[in-house]
Amino acid sequence: MRDFSHDHSALALNTATLGHNVEGHGAGWSPEQVIDACAEMGLGGVVFWRREIGNRATQIGAHAQNVGLKVAGLCRTPFLVGPLAPQPRQAMLDDFEASIDMAAGLGAEVLTIVVGGVEPGTKGIKASLERVADAVARMAPVAAARDVKLALEPLHPVYGGNRSCLVTLKDANDLCDLIDHAVGIVVDVYHVWWDTTLADELKRAGKDRLLGYHLCDWLADTSDVLLDRGMMGDGVADLKAIRQAVEAAGYQGLCEVEIFSARNWWKRPPHEVLQTCIERFRSVC
Amino acid sequence: MRDFSHDHSALALNTATLGHNVEGHGAGWSPEQVIDACAEMGLGGVVFWRREIGNRATQIGAHAQNVGLKVAGLCRTPFLVGPLAPQPRQAMLDDFEASIDMAAGLGAEVLTIVVGGVEPGTKGIKASLERVADAVARMAPVAAARDVKLALEPLHPVYGGNRSCLVTLKDANDLCDLIDHAVGIVVDVYHVWWDTTLADELKRAGKDRLLGYHLCDWLADTSDVLLDRGMMGDGVADLKAIRQAVEAAGYQGLCEVEIFSARNWWKRPPHEVLQTCIERFRSVC
Repeated sequence: MRDFSHDHSALALNTATLGHNVEGHGAGWSPEQVIDACAEMGLGGVVFWRREIGNRATQIGAHAQNVGLKVAGLCRTPFLVGPLAPQPRQAMLDDFEASIDMAAGLGAEVLTIVVGGVEPGTKGIKASLERVADAVARMAPVAAARDVKLALEPLHPVYGGNRSCLVTLKDANDLCDLIDHAVGIVVDVYHVWWDTTLADELKRAGKDRLLGYHLCDWLADTSDVLLDRGMMGDGVADLKAIRQAVEAAGYQGLCEVEIFSARNWWKRPPHEVLQTCIERFRSVC
Repeated sequence: MRDFSHDHSALALNTATLGHNVEGHGAGWSPEQVIDACAEMGLGGVVFWRREIGNRATQIGAHAQNVGLKVAGLCRTPFLVGPLAPQPRQAMLDDFEASIDMAAGLGAEVLTIVVGGVEPGTKGIKASLERVADAVARMAPVAAARDVKLALEPLHPVYGGNRSCLVTLKDANDLCDLIDHAVGIVVDVYHVWWDTTLADELKRAGKDRLLGYHLCDWLADTSDVLLDRGMMGDGVADLKAIRQAVEAAGYQGLCEVEIFSARNWWKRPPHEVLQTCIERFRSVC
């Protein structure tokens, strides 16, 4: 297992962690300001959300390259199925392609897929997962042609109804097996910390499929499953054990901190949040 | 698979479904009034919560027997571990024993165990589950001596932090394997609907371990994970497929409707709620 106690160059920032401090909110940092702060503080990468990029993907990507910061990923495709997916289906596929374009323009290595919930008119997750497989298989060649890696992110089962019918790493592995193209997986401790099959399924995924590892923590008294994530160390996830399993499976990439925290961390100055992420990364992750 | 389309004698009411209509709230039904209503409407059983019983267990149990209604279960032991468990541990064990006494007095067949969350000072669920195994092993002989069956209920992973470090049927099976006494499991669609290993784990549990089957539904737009459960048919759970798997594993017992619904069903007259449960049980379960 890598030793991060004196080195946080493997830490990446997902801008969701700064919440209200990104453009238009609070401290109002632009993507370039986020990139500069991350580079100055010694982080190894950054992950943006599409709404922060607008039509400036190439420009922002070039800025990151200039200051030597890796754009590790982009969040995310539209929901592919479920009550929140764009309608009609062609609109979803068009938006999927637009997200691939943006990732390519930005030079982002990985485009995250959050698959969406249970397709209206169906019951259970099976039929919805089949539609997901179909959509991903259609877009995989488009992504490959633009050098963008697609990564399925299984979400916590609490989102099963409306945001992600893909709720376990096992199901993500099964889905990858189904799709006749190279598709990867990102693993987020928030979504998988409770899963006793995790180490086995990480091994099954292996180095080739594992395209990202996300950090935060699950607060014991979670008050809001969307916007009450904890800072690493403040919750009940066994972060050391999870990373050990992730690395035993072959992952040696960046560790991306992604904390949605409307009641706490989003209210703090961005430098303080970044500094805390660094300290916790070195001590408890 | 049993045909319930013209027969709801396998339906049991968990009084949580009436919410604010039980003693002290709304319509203010006493346990005897609940028993009478269930018997009159042709249900096969009822499940109470300890706070409704007080020191009248024998009296209420006798009333149920007089009108021919089965007291199928009692909710529940105290949390055995985690931030909400009684302290010190002996107080928890005493309360565990008190819950066994009440179940015995009531003539309830099954006492449900909700195990509690992650033990303070530990990380992940492993250490907590070991403490659960120890507590259950200590109380199992006490329960057996009083003819009460203990049943572990795995809860949805969203409760992993504070209410139940036991979050999958697989982990419940593993826990039963660990404990050197007969301990059963209850399966609730709310907690397991998303789990693609469910059918296999139900088979693994088998007829002897499966001591209960709970009905409600997972609403796609769940607004509160504690008190926003759906009526059967209003959500995304594949109720027919789940019951098919439950029965294929050998379960032929009562189906217990348990709907915590502060914003909807708890506000309705109890007769209307019961009538709707019956209709939905016959049509969509």
